[in-house]
Amino acid sequence: MTEAVEDTENLEPWQKMSDLLEGGDHDTVASFVAEIPPVEVARIMARLPEPKRQALLHILTPDEAGDIIEAVPESQAKDLLREMDSGKAASILHELPDELAADLLNEIEPGEADAIYESLPDDEAERTRALASYDSDSAGGLMSNTYLSFRGSQTVSEVIENLRENSELYQDYTVQYAYVVDAKDHLRGVLRLRDLLLANRATQVSEMMIPSPTSLPGTAGLEEMAGFFDDHSFLGVPIVESEENPVLIGVLDEKSVRSASEKQARSTFLKLSGIIGGEELRSVPLHIRSLRRLSFLAPNILLNLIAASVIAQFQETLQAAIILAVFLPIISDMSGCSGGQAVAVSIRELTLGLLRPTEFLHVIMKEGAIGIVNGIVLGTVLGGIAAVWQGNPWLALVVGVSLAANTLVSVVLGGMIPLVLRKMKLDPALASGPILTTVTDMCGFFLVLSIASALLEKL
Amino acid sequence: MTEAVEDTENLEPWQKMSDLLEGGDHDTVASFVAEIPPVEVARIMARLPEPKRQALLHILTPDEAGDIIEAVPESQAKDLLREMDSGKAASILHELPDELAADLLNEIEPGEADAIYESLPDDEAERTRALASYDSDSAGGLMSNTYLSFRGSQTVSEVIENLRENSELYQDYTVQYAYVVDAKDHLRGVLRLRDLLLANRATQVSEMMIPSPTSLPGTAGLEEMAGFFDDHSFLGVPIVESEENPVLIGVLDEKSVRSASEKQARSTFLKLSGIIGGEELRSVPLHIRSLRRLSFLAPNILLNLIAASVIAQFQETLQAAIILAVFLPIISDMSGCSGGQAVAVSIRELTLGLLRPTEFLHVIMKEGAIGIVNGIVLGTVLGGIAAVWQGNPWLALVVGVSLAANTLVSVVLGGMIPLVLRKMKLDPALASGPILTTVTDMCGFFLVLSIASALLEKL
Repeated sequence: MTEAVEDTENLEPWQKMSDLLEGGDHDTVASFVAEIPPVEVARIMARLPEPKRQALLHILTPDEAGDIIEAVPESQAKDLLREMDSGKAASILHELPDELAADLLNEIEPGEADAIYESLPDDEAERTRALASYDSDSAGGLMSNTYLSFRGSQTVSEVIENLRENSELYQDYTVQYAYVVDAKDHLRGVLRLRDLLLANRATQVSEMMIPSPTSLPGTAGLEEMAGFFDDHSFLGVPIVESEENPVLIGVLDEKSVRSASEKQARSTFLKLSGIIGGEELRSVPLHIRSLRRLSFLAPNILLNLIAASVIAQFQETLQAAIILAVFLPIISDMSGCSGGQAVAVSIRELTLGLLRPTEFLHVIMKEGAIGIVNGIVLGTVLGGIAAVWQGNPWLALVVGVSLAANTLVSVVLGGMIPLVLRKMKLDPALASGPILTTVTDMCGFFLVLSIASALLEKL
Repeated sequence: MTEAVEDTENLEPWQKMSDLLEGGDHDTVASFVAEIPPVEVARIMARLPEPKRQALLHILTPDEAGDIIEAVPESQAKDLLREMDSGKAASILHELPDELAADLLNEIEPGEADAIYESLPDDEAERTRALASYDSDSAGGLMSNTYLSFRGSQTVSEVIENLRENSELYQDYTVQYAYVVDAKDHLRGVLRLRDLLLANRATQVSEMMIPSPTSLPGTAGLEEMAGFFDDHSFLGVPIVESEENPVLIGVLDEKSVRSASEKQARSTFLKLSGIIGGEELRSVPLHIRSLRRLSFLAPNILLNLIAASVIAQFQETLQAAIILAVFLPIISDMSGCSGGQAVAVSIRELTLGLLRPTEFLHVIMKEGAIGIVNGIVLGTVLGGIAAVWQGNPWLALVVGVSLAANTLVSVVLGGMIPLVLRKMKLDPALASGPILTTVTDMCGFFLVLSIASALLEKL
């Protein structure tokens, strides 16, 4: 008996959950979930085998299941919803804020998403579709569609009465502002709720509102939004359909913009590391993870073959001076690292808005200078090592000069490639790495082997 | 005359600024700065030559210069402050929020920072030093030390009176909550300002406050804070000295935590790309950028030489089958890419809290499976290409089997290295890449060349 208890205590939470699910009792499972913090729930969902994950979501009420969907990373939430029938998925999405539901539905294939929309109540489906029509990184995609709005003719005491009556409903709103609209729902002013404290109760809203407030259109992009919050110390900004038709459609808070920027920084890091098509978690089934990784690796084999074909052209040189084969991978790797640094700095400066995609000359000058300095240093070090190790100054010359020249090529190219890709409306994080290494490998191999061919009798 | 005007209009903003600075007139310069948005100010500061940057900060009032320091990235702000005399730096820091001043002073060398502290008013120096004593990614480092606090015995009408009297001072506070403390400054409750609207004016604060509020200690780390805001839908949380001594020391808002997470994601991406020691902007002087990049590259040359020394051991094999030299860099690069994907997934799961640094077995199983599948696919592709291109099935066997086996090694190692580094309290983003490529290169070269040695007469 005691042993059994000890065993249970040593179990990981996901194993306990797995056992509880065998029992199939709603209350036991629900109270276990309620006890643990969301990050632990996410860990459990990352460990449970697929059928158990679905069993868990089905045993819980839609409201409880919604909390789980909010706790797990978005990529997993999407997969969980896709794997259940559309009625169940709709009942869970019904419990989530519309903007989160819209985000998730946007990531699901259109056919499957349509089935879920059809299972949602009509007005909710319409609201969610409206949000989902915006790009998920635009103001319309990030805004919330729950906000307080009043007419300019209402008085402070009417507004306070409304707040008092609906205080339960507004509990979930994290509001500091209310918005004032006209009969056409056009945005006319902003009301600081704090100011209501100090105002005379008979005052009309239109007299105390901040008139012609700043707003952003639903199509505003991430950089525009981040720039806006950098320039203004507001916590939120009203979002309108467009400047010409300023119908109030939502409210965007700075927090959502920061989260989206964080997501972007993260996705840059994943893409530069060859994880493409969104986040990969180890809870995703093997065949999907494998295929997604291969979709980056397979084109890379071909690019590598193109680069290596340069070596094949110089087989005779290599045969005559086999020691060069030791230095080829070194020059390839070092140039890749030097260029990778320049790629990272360019991507970073583009994101910060410190560099425009057209400023080629600026990047060439700045990276050219660093390429010359670092090229000379690295070339001298590698040449020095080659001279001492192999006792051949000509070999030292070949590898030193090649690394020096190729470092210059790599950093200038590495600095430029993200600008060119951005100008071509391609994603610099995705393609910069493979393009860079292919070109610098070709150039590096060519430098070593052609200089060596010219000096062959000395090697 | 007309030509001169056109010329001026074609100038970049930083060139215009440069011209204005030649004039040396405060009002012209200040009104130019006031007209442009902060992101453009940051771009100008990134382009102006060093002496002009200092000239700009000196011509402006400390308040105006403070706005510029807030507009530029933190790494540049730090450099700008270091380069001016400590009195001027102190006068500018005086205009910034204490937490930003503390962050900047924390990044400056202790000797230089001390000189600036001495030029600050005593009470401000003390407050800033208290903030700076916390790690910049801890709750104490991210919190604000400006907040509203009241005693439990005060009434609603006293609180409202205080808000009214100090409304100008509180303008800068983005507050929704006030805090209730006892005579020892221990945190006792939280007051929602919104609730004041609805409360009877004679009520005592202690009756309407939320008692025993949640708080975090000043030493809480980024993951703990992010977890807290994931678990609670609060906009802010009070920070206390410690659980045992709950003296209220500041208020932390979710926004600051999100910004810090964004900064962390960004720094992961930069470090993985070989940009170490913080952000690099192209406005930093050449010798500093060059040295910092070399501090990553130079150790890499040595690691590369260790890996390449494996090739040197097999020169005879290589001489006998020179075509292998074409495939060595391919296997090196492909294994690096496969391993890099696994590194990124592990770093990501560690950051999300979905993976503990001790879960070696979990990672080995998950990456092992993907390594076997992707190894077989990639090995077959490369082997197939080798067979068709060189018409030698034995060569195809050597390179195919080597890439397959080395892919398995790379993904398992790539998945494990971040866990091992994290367990050793080292930064996974910094060291994972170089360690991974060195080991997988050695292993890959050894596989190709030793299998080839065994099959030499067939090649």
